[in-house]
Amino acid sequence: MSSNVDLILFGARGDLSKRKLFPALYQLERAALLDDSIRIAGVAREQLSSEQFIDDVKLRLQEALPAADWDEGAWSRFSRRLTFIKIDFAQKNNYPALKGWLVEGRTAIFYMATPPSLFGPICQHLDNAGCVDSRARIVLEKPIGHDLESSREVNATIGRYFPERNIYRIDHYLGKETVQNLLVLRFANRMINSQWDNSCIDHIQITAAETVGIEGRWSYYDKVGQLRDMVQNHLLQLLCMIAMEPPNSTNADEIRAEKVKLLRALSPVTPDNVADRVVRGQYAAGWISGKPVVGYMEEQGSESDSSNTETFVALKTYIDNWRWAGVPFYLRTGKRMAEKMTEVVITYKANPHGIFPGSNVEKANRLIFRLQPNEGVEMEMISKKHSLSNELKLEKRTLNLDFFDSSGGSRIPEAYERLFLEAIRGDQWLFVSREEIEASWRWCDTLIDSWRAKNLQVKPYSAGSWGPSKAEMLIEKDQRSWHGG
Amino acid sequence: MSSNVDLILFGARGDLSKRKLFPALYQLERAALLDDSIRIAGVAREQLSSEQFIDDVKLRLQEALPAADWDEGAWSRFSRRLTFIKIDFAQKNNYPALKGWLVEGRTAIFYMATPPSLFGPICQHLDNAGCVDSRARIVLEKPIGHDLESSREVNATIGRYFPERNIYRIDHYLGKETVQNLLVLRFANRMINSQWDNSCIDHIQITAAETVGIEGRWSYYDKVGQLRDMVQNHLLQLLCMIAMEPPNSTNADEIRAEKVKLLRALSPVTPDNVADRVVRGQYAAGWISGKPVVGYMEEQGSESDSSNTETFVALKTYIDNWRWAGVPFYLRTGKRMAEKMTEVVITYKANPHGIFPGSNVEKANRLIFRLQPNEGVEMEMISKKHSLSNELKLEKRTLNLDFFDSSGGSRIPEAYERLFLEAIRGDQWLFVSREEIEASWRWCDTLIDSWRAKNLQVKPYSAGSWGPSKAEMLIEKDQRSWHGG
Repeated sequence: MSSNVDLILFGARGDLSKRKLFPALYQLERAALLDDSIRIAGVAREQLSSEQFIDDVKLRLQEALPAADWDEGAWSRFSRRLTFIKIDFAQKNNYPALKGWLVEGRTAIFYMATPPSLFGPICQHLDNAGCVDSRARIVLEKPIGHDLESSREVNATIGRYFPERNIYRIDHYLGKETVQNLLVLRFANRMINSQWDNSCIDHIQITAAETVGIEGRWSYYDKVGQLRDMVQNHLLQLLCMIAMEPPNSTNADEIRAEKVKLLRALSPVTPDNVADRVVRGQYAAGWISGKPVVGYMEEQGSESDSSNTETFVALKTYIDNWRWAGVPFYLRTGKRMAEKMTEVVITYKANPHGIFPGSNVEKANRLIFRLQPNEGVEMEMISKKHSLSNELKLEKRTLNLDFFDSSGGSRIPEAYERLFLEAIRGDQWLFVSREEIEASWRWCDTLIDSWRAKNLQVKPYSAGSWGPSKAEMLIEKDQRSWHGG
Repeated sequence: MSSNVDLILFGARGDLSKRKLFPALYQLERAALLDDSIRIAGVAREQLSSEQFIDDVKLRLQEALPAADWDEGAWSRFSRRLTFIKIDFAQKNNYPALKGWLVEGRTAIFYMATPPSLFGPICQHLDNAGCVDSRARIVLEKPIGHDLESSREVNATIGRYFPERNIYRIDHYLGKETVQNLLVLRFANRMINSQWDNSCIDHIQITAAETVGIEGRWSYYDKVGQLRDMVQNHLLQLLCMIAMEPPNSTNADEIRAEKVKLLRALSPVTPDNVADRVVRGQYAAGWISGKPVVGYMEEQGSESDSSNTETFVALKTYIDNWRWAGVPFYLRTGKRMAEKMTEVVITYKANPHGIFPGSNVEKANRLIFRLQPNEGVEMEMISKKHSLSNELKLEKRTLNLDFFDSSGGSRIPEAYERLFLEAIRGDQWLFVSREEIEASWRWCDTLIDSWRAKNLQVKPYSAGSWGPSKAEMLIEKDQRSWHGG
């Protein structure tokens, strides 16, 4: 356990803090993974006493957590760590209060649960107030910019106050148990890693389907769209974990170097191939879970008569390196889709030849990493059907590789729990480097430039569907189909 | 279902008929897999009426079967098929009674549950009595000879009356559900078959350990020994199913051609390498399941003061072909061993490099086919331990690939059920061809000649152990170890 660490949450009264950050910290407390010496300061502009703040954290925690997870003893230990410091983020003269709370020789971790526009000013004021020493770490939430240029600005601003080794950029997908298990399964099992390439794998799919819509963020979202909101970060990070070369070790530098290499090998989407590789969609009115929902243009906050912003994107890409040459990667993500589902599906090549009678059952093996719902890993194999009948019958069966069931029904840790632990420990292996962010934006910018050049319009799809029919065609023209919807 | 078939069991009153054959036929009846037209004749020398015979079959069945498997309706249908025909096998003039029962145009299947010395005379008398037409099939139990020459004689004798396509040589290991599942897993899953070779597999072990001793057969067994009794047939047949090249189809000719090729590729054991590759053992007194048992030389029926017959053999062999060059196959089998266990263990190569901290847990993957006890298939994989602790922890987990548990607790069919079905259906794919028997004896003869040339003595081992310590050395000198004991 890491000791002498202080955690300072900017935006401690916000939604992320309530839903994710405090519950994650409390779970670490309950699991006895927070060193006694760790202190936690909530920072926000409200005028609150620490007592009021602590009472409110308790209330919010009890709302956010399953009742069975509530443990008075753990709460009592946890609450003793908490302090509230009132800071209006824009007010330079509010920061000395924080400086007064910090202790020389301890490690301060500044967690920015704030809008990105405040990253710069907060850093500057922290620095002015003498809060930033060579140990101090900063934890950032997405988005880091909206294109390569703006992300460079954000990174440069923060870089003025913190060296790269102290900057922890969160992509919470990397904190998920199943994403770490993907690394272990890939790199600890010869059986899997010896066929992780274009000789054995037919194609890979990544789907992140949401059922939610814009949720009141229309004016923000309309400037961004689904590619920037989901693909640039989460989907490309998953792609890296699946497809990167074996790193020399699990050391952060080694893993992140491989991810950068992978992002740089992404086949560019050009004006010539964009129509073949990218489908954009925008939801129209429809039904979600038996309830009618409005279309994107009718959402609250809609500011214009029409918009060419995508709420859905499906794309096919390749990785131009020795391992993956010729293997298509199909990515899709959208809002207001039929189900909430995030999964990676690795489809092996079919057998070269079927030796069994009626061998249409000899489907290709698939390995499925599901992040939600029901986080887990499955392998699809063909086995003999236990039938004494005259014919030898085969059937597809599913193996659970995650062992969540067999591990005594224990809780799957939330992504933020793992990420807090690693940030406290000072290990960046599950955080995103500046180079990764920039390589990822570079590829997305080229893609966006290409669809602009070709004036690629959004196709309507009904809310509650799996996206526009062109997304089916994107994969079906290759004689493949989307897994699960 | 195959119709118009008559099954004639020679030795219908013997031990095999009681323990295996009638229970298997009854189970097929219960599963509605015997066509209504199938008739079954028990043949033996006793003077019995069919009624007495049927009453006795019922009694023996009820003794042999689990009570829950007893179904009066199935028995009633089954009993109506049964007839008894008295034949003293050596008496030529007893056979017309059988001829009188057979019906022109139907397929007769003669099942020899008799000592091999009677195969020849019975065939001759059947032929003389006009019982053998071009459809008639014969089913034989082991042993087929005790070396290449004698097996050729047996095959030649039978071949005078039956063409090879009508001869069904049983190796009951081939009837086991798990052995068939091995074929399906190998050839229906690219994930498995694409790494089934010397680039991915480190070594393969086959163990058939028995706890029983000689069981009153001393004078017979002492002339035979464990190599001929178990390796020549069962262990080499398992080896074939594991290691043969993919057949063109599951057609019997295709599968058996591959098995012959494999047997011919077995690296010969010569006088030069026999001491390095073969360990022979003979049990001394010891303990089995907490009870004292005598040594081999003290067994009832022991006829001499000393014997160099092995009751245990461990050997290392190679397969001299492109797929398996350099991959050792370790085989061992013995009587009076610590546990009753038959299994095949495929050990993959270790990862070329460990990227995880403390990576001694990154053991090689193993695929285990267990024939007994608890028939099944398991895959050992390394997965992430569900632990939030600061270190990423790996653990070895076991996947069940047979799905016996999940298939609704259904009974695993006995080998003889499958073998009867295939013989009735007229499919030889799970039976052993003449060429296989002979290729297998050829290899064993060379091995035996080599140990004789070098005067390889049996090493004593305690009953209830895993064989002589030299058997451990056989594998440990290669930096490997036996799986399970």
